Amino acid sequence: EGKLIIFSVLSAKAIRDYIYTFVSRTNTCGELRSAHVGQKVTLYGWVQYQRQGLFLVLRDFHGLTQVIIPQDEVSATKELLSNAPVESVVRVTGTVSPRPLGQQNPKMPTGDIEVKAETAEILNSCKKLPFEIKDFIKKSEALRMQYRYLDLRSSRLQANLRLRSGVVMRMREYLCNLHGEGLLAGAKEFLVPSREAGKFYSLPQSPQQFKQLLMIGGLDRYFQVARCYRDEGSRPDRQPEFTQIDIEMSFVDQAGIQRLIEGLLQHSWPEDRGSIVTPFPSMTYEEALAEYGTDKPDTRFGMKIVDISDVLRGSNIHFVQNALSYPHGSIRAICIPQGMVSDARTSSLLTKFLGEKKQSELIQALNMQEDDVVLLAAGEHKQCSALGALRLLSADLLEAAGLTLRDPTAFHFLWVVDFPLFLPKAENPTELESAHHPFTAPHPSDASLLYSDPTKVRSQHYDLVLNGNEVGGGSIRIHSAEQQRFVLEKVLKEDSEVLSHLIEALEFGAPPHGGIALGLDRLISLIVDAPSIRDVIAFPKSFRGRDLMGNAPDYVTPEELEPYHIQVSWPLEEKEAKKN
Amino acid sequence: EGKLIIFSVLSAKAIRDYIYTFVSRTNTCGELRSAHVGQKVTLYGWVQYQRQGLFLVLRDFHGLTQVIIPQDEVSATKELLSNAPVESVVRVTGTVSPRPLGQQNPKMPTGDIEVKAETAEILNSCKKLPFEIKDFIKKSEALRMQYRYLDLRSSRLQANLRLRSGVVMRMREYLCNLHGEGLLAGAKEFLVPSREAGKFYSLPQSPQQFKQLLMIGGLDRYFQVARCYRDEGSRPDRQPEFTQIDIEMSFVDQAGIQRLIEGLLQHSWPEDRGSIVTPFPSMTYEEALAEYGTDKPDTRFGMKIVDISDVLRGSNIHFVQNALSYPHGSIRAICIPQGMVSDARTSSLLTKFLGEKKQSELIQALNMQEDDVVLLAAGEHKQCSALGALRLLSADLLEAAGLTLRDPTAFHFLWVVDFPLFLPKAENPTELESAHHPFTAPHPSDASLLYSDPTKVRSQHYDLVLNGNEVGGGSIRIHSAEQQRFVLEKVLKEDSEVLSHLIEALEFGAPPHGGIALGLDRLISLIVDAPSIRDVIAFPKSFRGRDLMGNAPDYVTPEELEPYHIQVSWPLEEKEAKKN
Repeated sequence: EGKLIIFSVLSAKAIRDYIYTFVSRTNTCGELRSAHVGQKVTLYGWVQYQRQGLFLVLRDFHGLTQVIIPQDEVSATKELLSNAPVESVVRVTGTVSPRPLGQQNPKMPTGDIEVKAETAEILNSCKKLPFEIKDFIKKSEALRMQYRYLDLRSSRLQANLRLRSGVVMRMREYLCNLHGEGLLAGAKEFLVPSREAGKFYSLPQSPQQFKQLLMIGGLDRYFQVARCYRDEGSRPDRQPEFTQIDIEMSFVDQAGIQRLIEGLLQHSWPEDRGSIVTPFPSMTYEEALAEYGTDKPDTRFGMKIVDISDVLRGSNIHFVQNALSYPHGSIRAICIPQGMVSDARTSSLLTKFLGEKKQSELIQALNMQEDDVVLLAAGEHKQCSALGALRLLSADLLEAAGLTLRDPTAFHFLWVVDFPLFLPKAENPTELESAHHPFTAPHPSDASLLYSDPTKVRSQHYDLVLNGNEVGGGSIRIHSAEQQRFVLEKVLKEDSEVLSHLIEALEFGAPPHGGIALGLDRLISLIVDAPSIRDVIAFPKSFRGRDLMGNAPDYVTPEELEPYHIQVSWPLEEKEAKKN
Repeated sequence: EGKLIIFSVLSAKAIRDYIYTFVSRTNTCGELRSAHVGQKVTLYGWVQYQRQGLFLVLRDFHGLTQVIIPQDEVSATKELLSNAPVESVVRVTGTVSPRPLGQQNPKMPTGDIEVKAETAEILNSCKKLPFEIKDFIKKSEALRMQYRYLDLRSSRLQANLRLRSGVVMRMREYLCNLHGEGLLAGAKEFLVPSREAGKFYSLPQSPQQFKQLLMIGGLDRYFQVARCYRDEGSRPDRQPEFTQIDIEMSFVDQAGIQRLIEGLLQHSWPEDRGSIVTPFPSMTYEEALAEYGTDKPDTRFGMKIVDISDVLRGSNIHFVQNALSYPHGSIRAICIPQGMVSDARTSSLLTKFLGEKKQSELIQALNMQEDDVVLLAAGEHKQCSALGALRLLSADLLEAAGLTLRDPTAFHFLWVVDFPLFLPKAENPTELESAHHPFTAPHPSDASLLYSDPTKVRSQHYDLVLNGNEVGGGSIRIHSAEQQRFVLEKVLKEDSEVLSHLIEALEFGAPPHGGIALGLDRLISLIVDAPSIRDVIAFPKSFRGRDLMGNAPDYVTPEELEPYHIQVSWPLEEKEAKKN
């Protein structure tokens, strides 16, 4: 309730009107205090629980209130309230009274009072529940999803969605400018058959192309809380339908976008989650890979990767010599402070082969302490994804062992910049693909390299990382038609015909422009420390992309498919199964 | 610009930061006044037009500024600005100067000043345009759609989208509460093939079921600016993708929802469109049909339908007698004030057959004046759709003839209530279908009729009508599982299995609840008096549901369809065509 007012731009009076007018309750279940004692009130809510016909706890979206059931024999109200099943919806009218001395509950905002029921009405009775609605009750994901509307009654989920709403509203306040329309774009989209035989729409994977066209349309600023759709098959903690804060601006540079996002997050940050410091630190893609072995470093703790090639170069250890003999060969290490607590073995082959001098050099290079553990990786690597993964794994082990490395209340934002513009294709390293998307502009100082050695070109792409999670990404876009055509045809060897409308648009006076998109679901789940983004979405799909409540996706009849000129091509075995 | 500040909740300072920081311009093209004279400024914008190398007009999202091109021979700036093609994007740095006496342009906000260019840069040159970007230039719908990003540069479309953004932001301010997630629901949806053979998702036609489940989930209040999808094939001025302000509340009644919407519209109404008076007038469905021959009456003008059966009953005119001989037979009429101006014929068969007395009764009943024209409809009708259509047609004719009946600046909101809950099916009048949707609750005073004579049951559905257009509709929902099951199975004879999850949800303590949805596109187009909703959507589809710019829907390869286990079933002739 408090948060609602904080986040709202309405006067307190307007808030009251909004919550109490339009409905016949006098108060919410979260509101009554000693100051209300003596008042006649009408509450609506759910029966949280009921004890021996003496009292019950009434719950609504705003809180809990204890209701005393009248005990006189003839009372219909007693009869009614004593027999109301848990989670039934009731109206209770009564008088606010102070709780008897010693029976106050300081943990409960309404714990000083109780409502002596006079009249009551069952608005809807509840049948036996598939599970108890208490946060601590364990229930299967599938069951929770099937009865999502019951799970939504848990205080945890309600708090998550309330916070999400508040944050988004504050973001809108900050960005309130042109409300663009979000639309079809991107690749890997869901297909939507049209009534024209053989023709399909696609669902927006992101409004990328359209927000660029808005800038070309002279709209200067665009932001949207955009619903996007991505078909990734079965991927844990991904949603076929997700939400992003989508932003595009004209006449802007990378620093401009970064300052905007920092201001946006500061403005919309929940008060009770502490404040965040801006500007956010920045790190190049190369640094990130070298020091953390990943392009989304968790900077809440150290254990950085150190190159100890020079220390060991002299030593005559076979695997070291072997590794260093390669052009990009090196020896990298991470030092795990107090690593012993998670690993009993104290022996180290390495020391056997190292002289005193080398050993102390090593200790210095890694700033080793008593009980530390050092992990080495020897080989031909520019990146250190292996040590990067080990670093995170070690952190988990240490925390499992009782140490705290990562303060759960700390929020470490980080910009990762200077990504390569192109990467060699996994299947055929001689060919190049865009590191992000083909509309990303090259780094100004690398522009000429685009024509000579594209592999060396850095991009004007930037990622926003929070506690080791990518929560946003964007770029300054190519606004020159020739450059865009060169990238598509000459570098990526793609058929630019598909994007001809965008390239043509660039020829009609496209302003320099850039933008960014924040993954709202991920961001909110990190703020509330939820294990899954499904905990911050009202009606998520299961990790297999299923809606277990409405049972989607579902079979449709051939008749329903007719207007769309499509038919199902059943895998053979299914055909057989259907036959028998 | 002014509107942006009005609508924003940010301080003026924050607004300035938002518009000027992040980019390197010092001012927008709509901002400079005499007070700025002498200041050195940097503007970014498009070349609106350029005259004889003397001056040009620079345009951005915020306005127009006149730029004087330096005339000294050696100036590179002169060279550059004189040759910049129209609609090229340029940066101009120069000094604000007063315009010479007599050359001020009072019609132009920046008309008192001009900017003497010192340096300039072409950020992007523009090739020959497919059409001139001026509101008064006529261009085909198809061409405008194909180059939507150019059409968006027109001041009219930019104003429309700016107003839309402002209104929506004000609506959010008013409603800011729980930001629910909007999802799959409804019938007649677009289908989305999934990777499971034969299984399809459907796109949300409206979040109807899910917002009800949110209430059952105890979330109390929900609103969303929801993107919805409806496959209506080719229908003029409809969009396969549209936007609605979607609202649901618990413990609310019809009056509560109506007051909320009146407050919402008053709060978000654009200042320069005058104020609107609340509460809105209300009319029953029966009255609307009897007096206006439609369930969405345009109440900006009179010409109501009058039943003159009793006046003519005595007369021995054959078609009158004939009509009145039927059970529901009646004679209805509308009187068109000054109808003569649109209809030269002054004769009237009727007068021949009517005596003096009847004639004067008729004149009195219809309050006829000199030059009025009366149209009659005789027959067996409860409704009067024919006269309703004639009423609107007559209004068009009169206005075409120069009279004003409907003030284009007037906004007449009207609630239409007490709709029937069920209607006889067109194809088989003995069967019933929902007048709106099967979740609509019966009118409290008709609840018992539901079991005895469903055809007589009025519903708790309400429509919001603006100037003869339906801009919203909603209802109090059924919250009793038994009642919902009875309606589906016994009245509608539908298979309730499809909705079993909703019915089951009602059994778990569903609160009394109701809601409404406003058609945002239609509402905004009426406010800005746009001929089509396509004028208030950034990237609309054509009236045939096509995206002429991105060329959607488009063909996809059988390979692309494989993961979705579908194939195109080509109509024969197309198969043939493909063969040759």
